[in-house]
Amino acid sequence: MLINNQNYRTVWMQYNFVYLINQQLLPHKFEIYKCKNYIETANAIKTMIVRGAPAIGATGAFGIAQAALEFKEDNFEDFKNYIENASGILKSTRPTANDLFYAIDFVKEKILKNFNVNDAKKDAVKLANEYADWNAELCRQIGEHGNNLIKNNQNILTHCNAGALACVDFGTALAPIRVAHYSKKSIFVYVDETRPRNQGASLTAWELAQEKISHAIIADNAAGFFMKKGKIDFAIVGADRIAMNGDVANKIGTYEKAVLAKENNIPFYVAAPLSTFDTKCKTGDDIPIEERSEDELLYIHGIDEDKKIKKIRIAPEQSSAKNPAFDVTPAKYITGIITEKGILKPIKQEIERFVNLKNAD
Amino acid sequence: MLINNQNYRTVWMQYNFVYLINQQLLPHKFEIYKCKNYIETANAIKTMIVRGAPAIGATGAFGIAQAALEFKEDNFEDFKNYIENASGILKSTRPTANDLFYAIDFVKEKILKNFNVNDAKKDAVKLANEYADWNAELCRQIGEHGNNLIKNNQNILTHCNAGALACVDFGTALAPIRVAHYSKKSIFVYVDETRPRNQGASLTAWELAQEKISHAIIADNAAGFFMKKGKIDFAIVGADRIAMNGDVANKIGTYEKAVLAKENNIPFYVAAPLSTFDTKCKTGDDIPIEERSEDELLYIHGIDEDKKIKKIRIAPEQSSAKNPAFDVTPAKYITGIITEKGILKPIKQEIERFVNLKNAD
Repeated sequence: MLINNQNYRTVWMQYNFVYLINQQLLPHKFEIYKCKNYIETANAIKTMIVRGAPAIGATGAFGIAQAALEFKEDNFEDFKNYIENASGILKSTRPTANDLFYAIDFVKEKILKNFNVNDAKKDAVKLANEYADWNAELCRQIGEHGNNLIKNNQNILTHCNAGALACVDFGTALAPIRVAHYSKKSIFVYVDETRPRNQGASLTAWELAQEKISHAIIADNAAGFFMKKGKIDFAIVGADRIAMNGDVANKIGTYEKAVLAKENNIPFYVAAPLSTFDTKCKTGDDIPIEERSEDELLYIHGIDEDKKIKKIRIAPEQSSAKNPAFDVTPAKYITGIITEKGILKPIKQEIERFVNLKNAD
Repeated sequence: MLINNQNYRTVWMQYNFVYLINQQLLPHKFEIYKCKNYIETANAIKTMIVRGAPAIGATGAFGIAQAALEFKEDNFEDFKNYIENASGILKSTRPTANDLFYAIDFVKEKILKNFNVNDAKKDAVKLANEYADWNAELCRQIGEHGNNLIKNNQNILTHCNAGALACVDFGTALAPIRVAHYSKKSIFVYVDETRPRNQGASLTAWELAQEKISHAIIADNAAGFFMKKGKIDFAIVGADRIAMNGDVANKIGTYEKAVLAKENNIPFYVAAPLSTFDTKCKTGDDIPIEERSEDELLYIHGIDEDKKIKKIRIAPEQSSAKNPAFDVTPAKYITGIITEKGILKPIKQEIERFVNLKNAD
């Protein structure tokens, strides 16, 4: 992604250091966070310096490569034990994102098929980079397919941040928007603020500003207003998990915007790699919804007049909050799902074929 | 309303002082603001120490009474000119709320029918109190009618603050909730945060906490989630203006919640006095929608660790925002309108009869 007119990824490795865009500080400060060893990389995942399932996955893969490079002995059996231990430390940082476990195992299992430490070290770095490249490529493909749906001069609504910051590059929901912009289509993006964590206002708006894509932040309450006024032509969001009937779990508020899009005859698309489909979930009812800390609603971060980052309380001392982090949007409200293999539409008829494409990989 | 276990109104008069609950400081500090003369009262309206159309109206009425008491001469012609001037100053504080102009004229026109200054002064105080009492009584009646719709053990959703703080007492949308609570019904209120100005989290939650009514603040994004989960039995909001076909202008986000309520078969009521009906508006399209400063979205107020009120920026420096303050909810999404004369339902068939009741007053 473009940041200050330079190309960046969310996470990368150089020598034996892992570098991350520090998402804790965005949008107020752009800083690269350098993890000097794999323990620091694990801590960066835990403290959400990096967030977004695909981005966390790639960071875990680089963490294993970094751990391998840090091993200073020659004995391969000792190396195996050491890597298993490092893998456990990296996996214990966040509980939910399946990508983290998948990416760590992807590197670990392959390098442990070696017979000597040096080969394993070389493979580890190569595999971690492969994993990151593969993830970026999936997102690029989603961008290409999604771009076919976007016409010149369209106004697009998005919710939360399914952008490059959540992935290695490009993003999922933001990938088609990027590709449309790169191919010189004139577009305007309505960015839902996305309370309570404000990923829309903090991260999506920041990404779009970096790419010089025209946009405005709107209150989540105003999305329906702009739809009814005919100001929104197309809505696109990411997904955290997709059930086998096409029900989509995504950031809280997605369901509201999808219902309103249907009511106003606006196409509502989900952009997600096929790995998001969970064959263990028959319907959306099988997807567990995380209830997060009420403090996300009661407090907020920002910068004061002196550009210092501050946390303030915005609700009454005596009041509490309820804070479901995700919701499930039934498939009937979703026009189609944009994947790396093309567009799944209509959902009911096509879902089996696409899940088979996934399994064929 | 109950505050710290004592009964308060939002505005009242004692001797020649006007007292207001300082709404600029809520929910972080409860302070009574004392206006020592009518110029201070005018400034309190202008700086939004008091807000909410009915509350502003009553404050304007008290302001005229206060101005009358401040007149130190005997000549009635001089008094007339002086009151006309004071009325102009009080009316110029806020542009939109019709209640302000109506309330000021209500007191002014009657007191100027006197022949001496002393009688006019006495009348002014009496009339201003009458106006405030009348407004509180309308809200109480809305509360009684609305309470008939609320069953024991119901969960109620509300949006924005249509509470006692916006009126003289009781509120409009919060009046039925108060009466249900006073009559020992067990209820739980889901309070939409109501971005961007957070009147739900700041004012409604604070009012409910004072009355010890069980409630939780939710992100505006989560209202649909709780509706779909079957957690909300009943939704109630206020209104800024109602067109003659029953379309309702109210705080931004009302339209979204009304569409979602209909989608989930949840009754969605509007509570408003008949004075909210605007015979000059045939449909909602005739109601102008105020676009407010983008800063309402880009910045936010709260208290820091030292309990000091701070304003911080929560959006990227390079991003702008669009901020419509109200939306229009078509009548088809509204189950009924709770007025001081009873419940207008079904809207299409009953609206003419209710508007005639208004005109009969």
